[in-house]
Amino acid sequence: MTDTQTLQAIEQTLAFVVEVEKLKTVVRNTRPVGLDRYENSAEHSWHVCLTALMLKDFADEAIDIDRVIRMLLIHDLGEIDAGDTIIYASETPEQKGAEAEGVKRILAMLPGDHLQEYFALWEEFEAGETADSRYARAVDRVPPLLHNLHGGGHSWRKHDVPKEKVLQLNSRIAKGSRALWEVLEARLQGAVEEGILK
Amino acid sequence: MTDTQTLQAIEQTLAFVVEVEKLKTVVRNTRPVGLDRYENSAEHSWHVCLTALMLKDFADEAIDIDRVIRMLLIHDLGEIDAGDTIIYASETPEQKGAEAEGVKRILAMLPGDHLQEYFALWEEFEAGETADSRYARAVDRVPPLLHNLHGGGHSWRKHDVPKEKVLQLNSRIAKGSRALWEVLEARLQGAVEEGILK
Repeated sequence: MTDTQTLQAIEQTLAFVVEVEKLKTVVRNTRPVGLDRYENSAEHSWHVCLTALMLKDFADEAIDIDRVIRMLLIHDLGEIDAGDTIIYASETPEQKGAEAEGVKRILAMLPGDHLQEYFALWEEFEAGETADSRYARAVDRVPPLLHNLHGGGHSWRKHDVPKEKVLQLNSRIAKGSRALWEVLEARLQGAVEEGILK
Repeated sequence: MTDTQTLQAIEQTLAFVVEVEKLKTVVRNTRPVGLDRYENSAEHSWHVCLTALMLKDFADEAIDIDRVIRMLLIHDLGEIDAGDTIIYASETPEQKGAEAEGVKRILAMLPGDHLQEYFALWEEFEAGETADSRYARAVDRVPPLLHNLHGGGHSWRKHDVPKEKVLQLNSRIAKGSRALWEVLEARLQGAVEEGILK
């Protein structure tokens, strides 16, 4: 038989597991390649974790890929309360404050000192001032760019995002991996030439 | 400027990133708590990775949680070609063979020796004969059980799965964490008493 404290900690964790499931209802602004529907933030979170793992050798700085993956597993949890907003319009203090509150509420469901540990990791991701978070933030931009590049620039056109803004905002990819940005910047220039990014 | 080989390796990896996106179209047999739609295997993959991370202290054996998470990030990739089938009917050699071929096809898109590395990890997960894979396989069962427990036993009833089969198959959770199984087994017994598991 297991002691009551352990059983209780497991129960608390399972309540967290059920709560975070709501991330599957948060709708993002791009469509996965080949799909007619929009992506949700839970499947996006899986996608960026796997992308980070497979691109890890192209990070410019020494990174701890396992920390990066943990960061990316939780990076969007704040959207459960705050919702997702398109990056070109939304990196405001208000949005970020609402996400911080949301992450705290959800992590507080966990037993022990998980709240402190993972909230610090979330803040590190948001600040983007460490090698791990620079790389994580670079990778987080990759799937939406691929969605637009393979999807006729759907969300760029829908939200009327000009090429200057797309190039400027996504140049943060170079802070994590210059080579990755080199590849993607060339593709974006190609999109401009094709007329899908204006 | 980056050398051509590096740029090519990045291009290959990005093609993989686009290809694995198809996991977002693989429909599973349970519905996330509170949702009317079925879950897809991409959002499930995120959910089990986060579940594994937060339950890691309850593993009975010494595990490498980062290897466990990598395993779980790729554990369902074979379903892109083979599809998902309900576990109570489908752990057949044919299904597993089709998934193995599918995983190989997709991992072969990656540069370098990633195919060998990650296919070995996938096989380790499937075999379930190491501490890491025993724990990973235990955690992989948690969300579908929670979906049924919080969802009136929807998929049990739909597929007419008797309580004996549910208890027997999910007892594999005890191979990764006896305490976790203790909690979930008690809940399943509660579901039997409530009449949602027969």
